[in-house]
Amino acid sequence: MAQSGSGFLCFATLLLCSAFATSFSTDPPLLQQHKDRVGRLPGQNFNVSFAHYAGYITVEENAGRTLFYWFIEALEDPHSKPLVLWLNGGPGCSSIAFGQSEEIGPFHINPDGKTLHPNPYSWNRVANILFLDTPVGVGFSYSNNGSELLNNGDNRTAKDNLVFLLKWFERFPQYRSNDFLISGESYAGHYVPQLSQAIVKYNSATKEQAINLKGFMVGNALTDDYHDQLGMFEFMWSSGLISDQTYKLLNLLCDFESVEHPSHSCENIWEIADKELGNIDPYSLFTPPCHANVSQLSRLVRRKNRIGRLGLSTEYDPCTERHSIVYFNRPEVQTALHVDLDHKPATWETCSDVVYTNWKDSPRSVLDIYHELIGMGLKIWVFSGNTDVVIPVTSTRYSISALKLPTLSPWRAWYDDGEVGGWTQEYAGLTFVIVRGAGHEVPLHKPKLALTLVQTFLAGTSMPNLDLLSTS
Amino acid sequence: MAQSGSGFLCFATLLLCSAFATSFSTDPPLLQQHKDRVGRLPGQNFNVSFAHYAGYITVEENAGRTLFYWFIEALEDPHSKPLVLWLNGGPGCSSIAFGQSEEIGPFHINPDGKTLHPNPYSWNRVANILFLDTPVGVGFSYSNNGSELLNNGDNRTAKDNLVFLLKWFERFPQYRSNDFLISGESYAGHYVPQLSQAIVKYNSATKEQAINLKGFMVGNALTDDYHDQLGMFEFMWSSGLISDQTYKLLNLLCDFESVEHPSHSCENIWEIADKELGNIDPYSLFTPPCHANVSQLSRLVRRKNRIGRLGLSTEYDPCTERHSIVYFNRPEVQTALHVDLDHKPATWETCSDVVYTNWKDSPRSVLDIYHELIGMGLKIWVFSGNTDVVIPVTSTRYSISALKLPTLSPWRAWYDDGEVGGWTQEYAGLTFVIVRGAGHEVPLHKPKLALTLVQTFLAGTSMPNLDLLSTS
Repeated sequence: MAQSGSGFLCFATLLLCSAFATSFSTDPPLLQQHKDRVGRLPGQNFNVSFAHYAGYITVEENAGRTLFYWFIEALEDPHSKPLVLWLNGGPGCSSIAFGQSEEIGPFHINPDGKTLHPNPYSWNRVANILFLDTPVGVGFSYSNNGSELLNNGDNRTAKDNLVFLLKWFERFPQYRSNDFLISGESYAGHYVPQLSQAIVKYNSATKEQAINLKGFMVGNALTDDYHDQLGMFEFMWSSGLISDQTYKLLNLLCDFESVEHPSHSCENIWEIADKELGNIDPYSLFTPPCHANVSQLSRLVRRKNRIGRLGLSTEYDPCTERHSIVYFNRPEVQTALHVDLDHKPATWETCSDVVYTNWKDSPRSVLDIYHELIGMGLKIWVFSGNTDVVIPVTSTRYSISALKLPTLSPWRAWYDDGEVGGWTQEYAGLTFVIVRGAGHEVPLHKPKLALTLVQTFLAGTSMPNLDLLSTS
Repeated sequence: MAQSGSGFLCFATLLLCSAFATSFSTDPPLLQQHKDRVGRLPGQNFNVSFAHYAGYITVEENAGRTLFYWFIEALEDPHSKPLVLWLNGGPGCSSIAFGQSEEIGPFHINPDGKTLHPNPYSWNRVANILFLDTPVGVGFSYSNNGSELLNNGDNRTAKDNLVFLLKWFERFPQYRSNDFLISGESYAGHYVPQLSQAIVKYNSATKEQAINLKGFMVGNALTDDYHDQLGMFEFMWSSGLISDQTYKLLNLLCDFESVEHPSHSCENIWEIADKELGNIDPYSLFTPPCHANVSQLSRLVRRKNRIGRLGLSTEYDPCTERHSIVYFNRPEVQTALHVDLDHKPATWETCSDVVYTNWKDSPRSVLDIYHELIGMGLKIWVFSGNTDVVIPVTSTRYSISALKLPTLSPWRAWYDDGEVGGWTQEYAGLTFVIVRGAGHEVPLHKPKLALTLVQTFLAGTSMPNLDLLSTS
């Protein structure tokens, strides 16, 4: 989906006009910012010292494509801290359901589906975090033209996300000069580099740094269909999940298959692999699945499954996703988050089947974007929890290896509190970080390690090693 | 180390003479059995309903090669239950230190090194367990001729273990007719099939079923140097522990190397791999190492390390081995276990460096023995904890694949309490069982799953599946 330069320029000009039109046609931005401020949430039995905001931004007026966001300021001194946009994958999954509510956000949901508890490893300890439900049809994001939900794809998502950001910075002009970074996981392995590319092109076309993009970081990210599948087959075999024969047949029958459109024979061997795995949580190999909904979980790893939909980890509640469903369908919660009653979904879902099954365009690889953006000097980090079967560490290794980047700093273990947190290698233009014992949703399974990771990424330093820690 | 039939016959005849000589020259067997009975152990603040015995059996009179055993009767109805011999590896490691004290035995040691707690998953719930420290120089086993500790190897170990068993059954004749099975892990991947082969040959040569051997079961077992190394390199890469370059160089420089005598270039790349891994417990990838002794644990996976020496898992104490060292060096404990003051080691060790570094013969593969014994109809099970880096699941898969056995029952998940306990495949003559989330010492890391495993092995049934469980 790489766009031609001239085509993008026209698009950028249109965007500018659209942005101006908007700023005159609605409430003044700062007033809308004020209106978006969220008070105490239902079930929030603790105080918070930071401000947070939730609301909508219309990214296309004609169809009324409107994206829902939740912006959470940093715990301390937000104006000096970077701004991080977090995107979940699917396609079709809500960043509020996953990113905010069970991964990096400050408000995590108790099993009663009514009350909240603070996440001590919230990324707003080190950054302002912006959660975006994208594209339309995801979470509380909507379109006035329902048929648009049947026409989502990578291309329009990147464009809509860019418009969203331009307008969001109008509403929150005080964050224009902060360092801006994008992060996400799973299918956001497409969204994040694609949006980064769109920003770089927009900035270049308009000859101004409209968005102060400094870099991006993705985890267990869909990157390249060939490497992702090759790595998945290998990881399933080397972890002991599938038979020798199934491993051979997956490699034979699914070789170079598109994730979107696998052949019949590839689908058939996937069915066999699926049965061999048994009732595990493929997003986290060593933790129990949520038994509250056996039918959903017995689906396991299937090509037709959403990538990054579940993600559930014995210090941890495997049913987190279900608590979100209860909480965000409560009318009082929707009111508190300024959800528009005229546009709210009949039932709020963590992931939209409509969006997923009607996805239009998905390039087989985004490695070309990595090449382009590495050349631009963006800070690019790629991390991987090494107990994820869906987009395993092997997949990511194959993709990074294909980039053929020179090594700056050799492979080594990194440490947190004196324990190996994982492994890391710094390449020219890209830093790779493995998080030991984390599944598909790294901040869910290893919240403390994930906070160390984002802190280090934002600081632009190297992952901590044992010597530095013991002398610090 | 396959022995010729005629050579073995002479050996067997000598054994018989030796056995007769012994039975007339010492205490009557039943008297010695009575003398070996162990009372309440120091620090045992709980009652047990079963009997247990500890003592010595001299396997070669001239040099005074004498092996120490600890025999623990089944919790209930021991005479109707099978007898399982358990062997640890190294070479040089004590079955009492590992098998009894932190894996399958009923007496586990508290961190104070003084008191014991009962192991609720002790294998004496389903079998009588015989722990043997073998060969001489291991644990409390000794030789009157110290130079013999410099001449241990697979060959003599198998012979001495056979003599031990013949004499042990003289002392415990009430167990002669019980089903006899052998189990063990790590380097016992050599000992167990080698001893099984020796028993089969002895029974055949003497034309009597002197030892009622029914089968064996090994876990994370050294089996075939080529496959074991190939699998280890692959597992280290696919788990994200080593760099791409180191992975390539290990395969290049250590290809077909002997584990005992690696080349200089292979050793060098091992040193690099070792550093890349960092301070993890290679015997259990996702659990913290014991920080009580950093120098020992920073050694990590090295070719010169003992195989199966450590083995330490967060519901679990990583310093178990250290508690054994304290406990078994206590004079009152040694007295309770009938340790001979004239022959006790200056310091009791969990693993002997002298034995390990002076090991003489170690065949590169025992797959030929598998072929031979499968043909004999022995029940053979092979299991693997899939978080062990030292002899990982990939190694065992390569070795089993090399046996080219027909499949009887296809690959599937097995279940314990409704959760996936691992995966299994039944071949003609061999059953393979993976234990999910277990390290090198499966019964240490996953005690409940290990008890299910041995119970199923002894029953001769298939590993439980979900349907069977939910209807039972």
